[in-house]
Amino acid sequence: MKKILITGASGFVSSYFIEFLENNQIKSFVLGLDIFKNDYPSTYKYVNRSFRQIDLLNTQEIENIIYSFQPDYILHLASYSSVAFSWKNPVLSFQNNTNIFLNLVEAVRKLNLSTRILSIGSSEEYGNINSDHLPLYEYLSPDPINPYAVARVSQELLSKVYSQGYGIEIIMTRSFNHLGPRQRDVFVIASFAKQIAELKKQGLKEGTISTGDLSIVRDFLDVRDVVKAYYLLLTKGKNGEIYNICSGRGVSLQEIVKKLSEMSGIKITTITNPAYIRPNDNKIIIGSNEKIYNAVGWKPQLSIDQSLKDIYTYWCDIF
Amino acid sequence: MKKILITGASGFVSSYFIEFLENNQIKSFVLGLDIFKNDYPSTYKYVNRSFRQIDLLNTQEIENIIYSFQPDYILHLASYSSVAFSWKNPVLSFQNNTNIFLNLVEAVRKLNLSTRILSIGSSEEYGNINSDHLPLYEYLSPDPINPYAVARVSQELLSKVYSQGYGIEIIMTRSFNHLGPRQRDVFVIASFAKQIAELKKQGLKEGTISTGDLSIVRDFLDVRDVVKAYYLLLTKGKNGEIYNICSGRGVSLQEIVKKLSEMSGIKITTITNPAYIRPNDNKIIIGSNEKIYNAVGWKPQLSIDQSLKDIYTYWCDIF
Repeated sequence: MKKILITGASGFVSSYFIEFLENNQIKSFVLGLDIFKNDYPSTYKYVNRSFRQIDLLNTQEIENIIYSFQPDYILHLASYSSVAFSWKNPVLSFQNNTNIFLNLVEAVRKLNLSTRILSIGSSEEYGNINSDHLPLYEYLSPDPINPYAVARVSQELLSKVYSQGYGIEIIMTRSFNHLGPRQRDVFVIASFAKQIAELKKQGLKEGTISTGDLSIVRDFLDVRDVVKAYYLLLTKGKNGEIYNICSGRGVSLQEIVKKLSEMSGIKITTITNPAYIRPNDNKIIIGSNEKIYNAVGWKPQLSIDQSLKDIYTYWCDIF
Repeated sequence: MKKILITGASGFVSSYFIEFLENNQIKSFVLGLDIFKNDYPSTYKYVNRSFRQIDLLNTQEIENIIYSFQPDYILHLASYSSVAFSWKNPVLSFQNNTNIFLNLVEAVRKLNLSTRILSIGSSEEYGNINSDHLPLYEYLSPDPINPYAVARVSQELLSKVYSQGYGIEIIMTRSFNHLGPRQRDVFVIASFAKQIAELKKQGLKEGTISTGDLSIVRDFLDVRDVVKAYYLLLTKGKNGEIYNICSGRGVSLQEIVKKLSEMSGIKITTITNPAYIRPNDNKIIIGSNEKIYNAVGWKPQLSIDQSLKDIYTYWCDIF
């Protein structure tokens, strides 16, 4: 029975990861850490789950926890992952991405454990993308253009040194956009689905939703596919390697709105909210998932249509 | 009369920078910051100098100091620059390179100052060097392979984002090996010169010194040339650009020993101390200084022979 430490355990991705373990009858002790309290249900048959509220900047407490739990695996999901937040609070973003990661791997090093760590990175690390380089492969050098992306690249560079220099087992990801039910509506697709579900609730046949730039194309991956990739990499990924976590398909936000409109039977008009427009944003981001497929046989299972249907249903059930 | 804030003000490079200002009759207010007290003489005609003992991890105190001093320029020399130390204390190395820099630039950003900052980086950022890539040019992507180098690359990535994203004026260096009188004998050439000066003092005609791998080739630059480059970049370098600070010439440690032997008239035998051998060290590091020459007209003035003579004389005077 393996022991898995999860940071960012109160978050969206963590809840799906635990469901993945449970649904696949993977018996495990899970210790979740988060600065915020956890309100997901906690009755599982295969997962023995506990939780500790902690600030990962607290070096000594992390070391104590890791020492007493002796994890076989660490799934490091904790992150201040908003680019917009990072522009306003670059120091907090840096500390709560890079420094917390450093605290974690340093505890594993000092305690001389053979824990395997999955370090989550971001497609933001690629920076401004030349369209000749699409789809993005892992061998491309990062070129971060916002504070959040710098923090993620720094984390990746530290991971490499801890892996190659100290022999700690660290597998790295560059994770692309996620979508899925329960995602907060600060994320674009959840925002669209929520607004359309509200129109539905009001019994409207047409309506307006507020959006950012709909022409941009992103590589969206269902969180249920994401957590499967994380599990496979954590258990079977190659030490010191970086893997894109992405669908390999690009979809424009315009198409997303169209699909949600069809699903709901509501005729949608969009208005652009300038607050949602990011300066210097890439028009198109699409990754290659060849490397992870070759390494652990992972491929996305859920179509974008299935994901959107589940998300729309989730928001309809809330109202 | 310009106001210059210098961090790492108790160090070797800072003392030469202030001498450069004085010798060139550049009237300036200099506020030096360092975690250690400063013991360099402080009677200058052109430089009005003050000093504050401070830990640069103290965010609030830095902000207060920068607010009250309102520097035109910041020369950020403070660093835990030892690679060996960084392997033993990766967290301290990271914090005392990257996080202190972040505190500094963040204070400038928050206070909305038009201060120009020189961010000192290192040739260590280049990592394992393919000999096809010599001499090293700034366009090469960093590939750091030790914790110190990761910290420096993170600092450089932050610099770019602060420069391009926030419009802070930051010029970056990748500085190669320094040499010069007063350098501490933990550095290789100071160590050789000191050992040979000790033999001289004893009146010996031959003797043995302890060394590392003498076949390695490095690009050494006299600290007096370094500080001139720093002054020119600080005042005239292009915002957001990275400049190698190097001689452009490679010299093997074997040649250095030979030159010092000739200068001293002592026949030197060397014995290898395994403690001085660094694993995975590059055999040859040579940089190109074309970019800084084209930008500000800087070229090294002092020959390696002149530097070695001054260093040897310095150590002879001590004994």
